[in-house]
Amino acid sequence: MTHLDAETERLLDASPVARLATIAADGRPQLVPIVFARSGGALWSPIDAKPKSGRLLARIRNVERDPRVALLVDRYDDDWRRLWWLRIDGRASIVHGDAAAETSLRAKYPQYRGGVALYGGEPLLVRIEPERVARWSAGASS
Amino acid sequence: MTHLDAETERLLDASPVARLATIAADGRPQLVPIVFARSGGALWSPIDAKPKSGRLLARIRNVERDPRVALLVDRYDDDWRRLWWLRIDGRASIVHGDAAAETSLRAKYPQYRGGVALYGGEPLLVRIEPERVARWSAGASS
Repeated sequence: MTHLDAETERLLDASPVARLATIAADGRPQLVPIVFARSGGALWSPIDAKPKSGRLLARIRNVERDPRVALLVDRYDDDWRRLWWLRIDGRASIVHGDAAAETSLRAKYPQYRGGVALYGGEPLLVRIEPERVARWSAGASS
Repeated sequence: MTHLDAETERLLDASPVARLATIAADGRPQLVPIVFARSGGALWSPIDAKPKSGRLLARIRNVERDPRVALLVDRYDDDWRRLWWLRIDGRASIVHGDAAAETSLRAKYPQYRGGVALYGGEPLLVRIEPERVARWSAGASS
C-alpha cells in the first residue's frame, strides 16, 4: 500500500465525487461516478441506497475478476489555469462491512446521516488500496 | 456508429469536461479528464496546449493499441436526487486535424478563441465513435 501525502489526502477529502474505472469481462474499461471516503490508508465506496442503473453490480463483478482499478478526482474551471486532477491506481476488493469506513463515510456525507441508507442491501463496500498516485495541475499549485 | 439521441446530445453539449478511460499496455485502466465536442456524430478531444503531465501521450498510445474506450460525464450535487451520469462506450482513433471538429471545439470553448492553442504541437485529436450509451439519473428526469 502506498502512503498518501497530506496534499493528496486534502484533495480527496475535499472531493465529494470520484470516477472509478474498472475492467469489464471483455477487457473494456467500465466507468462510473462514486462517492468515497478515506479510512485506514484506503479509499472506501459503499454500495448504497441511491438508485442504481440496470447493470447493478458491474463494478463488483469487475473488481472480483480483476482488482486493478483507477480512481480520478478533478476540478474543472472555465479558467484553465485552475484545472487540476489526481489519479490513484490501486487494487480493489469487496468488503462486507467495516465500522471505521462507515464512520468516515457518514462523517464526509451528511446524506448518510439523513435520508439515504449507507447500504442498499448487503453491507458491501469497494475498498481501494492505493498503489500509485499521479497529480497534475495547470498552475503552480493545486 | 450509434446515433446519439437529442437528450444525450444536450447533456454532452452542456458538459465542459468528461473523463476518458483507456486501457494501458498492462491491461490496467487509465483515466484522465478531457475537454471534447461533438462533430459528425463523433466526439473529439484535442491534444491541446494546456500543460500536460509527464505521461504525455499515454491516451494516444493506449488508443492506438486498443481502441475501446469509455467516456463519462456526470453531475454531482449535494442533493442526491439531482445526480445523473451518462456513459459512452466507443471506439477511439487518432486523427491528424479535422476542420469540422476544430470548429465545434472553438464554438464550445471560448478558451480556444482566446489564449489557449487548440493544438499543443501536431494537430492531433482523439476521435470517439459512440457504440453504446448508458444513462442514469437519480430522479425522474435528468
